[in-house]
Amino acid sequence: MALNCNPVQGMRDLLPDEVELRRYVTDTILDVYKKYGFTQIETPCTEHMNFLTGGDGGENEKMLFKILKRGEKLIINEQTQEKDLCDIGLRFDLTVPLSRYYAINREKLPRQFKAIQTGSVWRAERPQKGRYRQFTQCDIDIIGVKGVIAETELIMATSEALLNLSFTRFVVKINDRRILESLAEYCGFPTEAYGNVFIILDKLDKIGVEGVRKELEKAGYAPESIETFLKITAQSAILTTDELPEVLPNLSENVLQDLQNVTRIITLFSEGRFNIQFDISLVRGMGYYTGQIFEVAVSDFGSSIAGGGRYDKMIGKMLGGKEEIPACGFSIGFERVIMLLTEMKFQLPQKAEKIVILYPEETDILPLMETATWLRTEGKIVLLEAEKKNRRKQLEDCRNQGYSNFAIYTENQPLELRENQ
Amino acid sequence: MALNCNPVQGMRDLLPDEVELRRYVTDTILDVYKKYGFTQIETPCTEHMNFLTGGDGGENEKMLFKILKRGEKLIINEQTQEKDLCDIGLRFDLTVPLSRYYAINREKLPRQFKAIQTGSVWRAERPQKGRYRQFTQCDIDIIGVKGVIAETELIMATSEALLNLSFTRFVVKINDRRILESLAEYCGFPTEAYGNVFIILDKLDKIGVEGVRKELEKAGYAPESIETFLKITAQSAILTTDELPEVLPNLSENVLQDLQNVTRIITLFSEGRFNIQFDISLVRGMGYYTGQIFEVAVSDFGSSIAGGGRYDKMIGKMLGGKEEIPACGFSIGFERVIMLLTEMKFQLPQKAEKIVILYPEETDILPLMETATWLRTEGKIVLLEAEKKNRRKQLEDCRNQGYSNFAIYTENQPLELRENQ
Repeated sequence: MALNCNPVQGMRDLLPDEVELRRYVTDTILDVYKKYGFTQIETPCTEHMNFLTGGDGGENEKMLFKILKRGEKLIINEQTQEKDLCDIGLRFDLTVPLSRYYAINREKLPRQFKAIQTGSVWRAERPQKGRYRQFTQCDIDIIGVKGVIAETELIMATSEALLNLSFTRFVVKINDRRILESLAEYCGFPTEAYGNVFIILDKLDKIGVEGVRKELEKAGYAPESIETFLKITAQSAILTTDELPEVLPNLSENVLQDLQNVTRIITLFSEGRFNIQFDISLVRGMGYYTGQIFEVAVSDFGSSIAGGGRYDKMIGKMLGGKEEIPACGFSIGFERVIMLLTEMKFQLPQKAEKIVILYPEETDILPLMETATWLRTEGKIVLLEAEKKNRRKQLEDCRNQGYSNFAIYTENQPLELRENQ
Repeated sequence: MALNCNPVQGMRDLLPDEVELRRYVTDTILDVYKKYGFTQIETPCTEHMNFLTGGDGGENEKMLFKILKRGEKLIINEQTQEKDLCDIGLRFDLTVPLSRYYAINREKLPRQFKAIQTGSVWRAERPQKGRYRQFTQCDIDIIGVKGVIAETELIMATSEALLNLSFTRFVVKINDRRILESLAEYCGFPTEAYGNVFIILDKLDKIGVEGVRKELEKAGYAPESIETFLKITAQSAILTTDELPEVLPNLSENVLQDLQNVTRIITLFSEGRFNIQFDISLVRGMGYYTGQIFEVAVSDFGSSIAGGGRYDKMIGKMLGGKEEIPACGFSIGFERVIMLLTEMKFQLPQKAEKIVILYPEETDILPLMETATWLRTEGKIVLLEAEKKNRRKQLEDCRNQGYSNFAIYTENQPLELRENQ
């Protein structure tokens, strides 16, 4: 009996065209990042369970693929619980591994460490359209830089990569966790409620102002706090950084200046090809952010295609909490980029000429191989195929694989290249 | 307390230099393979347990990383056995996944399917120097071609990739499983013993002729079989294909001709840059091979750096056993290649000029970013670093990262590039 040959549930096999597009996108992004002095690193796909359940992964920690202990380490009896069975698991993002990597390797790394990571991550989410349990992330991070030159370079590099992938008219939304905190403080929410207030605000896009109001009321916050909060956040689309000191008189001068600085530099850099826009309602889900946060939105596409921010406390925590290690990152939603390019029927630039040579089944392959080698030395892509009865169909199949030229091989005769139309 | 930040046992973090070399090697190999009309595919890193334990993986099946069932599927009680806990596992090679992939996707693939796969595989081996539990494989396979044009192209592409990676004077050893069978038959071993005889022969390199003799005797085979067998295999280094019909009169004419054909074409193709050599003692471990088998040995290096062969039965088996699907593959030992290049202190070709700009901590970053953007637009790699007190040390660190030029940024002054010596 034939086996069920489907891939593991929620995961997928990639066809040649799909891999080619993914490789093109990766190469395009990496080429840009490298110009900015970023260098690529890699960590194993598995991490110790204590890192994967340390709290920085939020909801992702509930979607772990856990790996069974091996050999003598595994003992099953009636007291056995899930946590006794597994010592390691598949990583759910690239940020937790980066922090661990930096903590253990920092002596070998430059003091300003500009890292690129691209690789698979795994989340056991409920399978649904466009969501997979193994998917690719593509992150850049700068570790060791306190000033917003880090944020500026991250936004520049990410925008330039997206521009090179033919995205235009996207918007980089920017905010700062410290602005959100000033906002919550100004509205009079109790300090311990800030986190929850931000989580509710994060849903603004989905549930609207009235939805946010309902959730805040349900949580029992003071009506005047809610009123002030909604009045300010409802203006998020039009509120400028210049107006901020008036709206939030408690905001630190430094935070404002940094924000204005980055916005001004990126506006110049954009040359009108994309926009950067302050958005006081931008929250970003992860709790570990400590400073500026940003996100890239493409018009006509619901969710963001890149996101990031500053997280100055996470790595220090791994190192034992004695020092703060400044860090800042930006992640491109690789799978979303691929989805959008596919929807846009993006055409890959064709670099090399592709030639198929049809040969008779019983030919002497030596001179055939010599011919092919000669063409390949010239840099051409050469496919050799035994000629089938239905030559028209065969050439059509080759055309679908991008072979725009063909030749019929006949022994002792010069090869005649023809267009495969 | 600081956490133990070491990577998972037997796995490793890769530093920027290491990733750069690995990427260069991958790109070099892929560029060659693509000229031969191979296209890249990808499968998930996990497979269903029934594929991973189907018998084609040999010893590797004992070294599985198994993944715990998720959610309701997992019930632990006293009857629980290891096999009840896990439904999927990490792949241990790329051949089993390729067969599954082809079985399920064949309608979408060309009839002659030339696949490239490169990716991580996992084996829970005892940790030892140079052996890792997560490592990279790099395979090419041709599915759907019966004739030795497939073998020829695989050997050509693999050799060319190795030449482009600056390997020279390597030897492609070639044999055929059917020659081994003729040999075993000629010596008078019983048919059911063939497999075991080959496994013993495979150890020739390690245990020598006398070691092989002892193991064959221990297995209880007829002394005259052993004698004939050893007499022939002891000549493996000098026995030519021309002499084969005399040594093995029972050998099929076709098998011999195919072997001579491939050897002749590859000899011409090599132009003296490497050798191809028939080796009757070449076995290749995996039981699934059915025709020609090959291996690349580099002088002064113990084990092989590439290996492969024809396996016409494996995919058909997955499809339910009704038809035979011709298939043939060649795998480069990626980690060994990396190890050798590192030992050889291989120098990566430097493509772009690398410039570091040192700026004063308190500078206005806008004009600085404009300068950097301009240089990056010119294709240069530009690293911005806040100037440290010990400038000499800082520039030395930058030089170690390949920054051969530097400039000290001063506001309102033209940038002066200098050599970083």
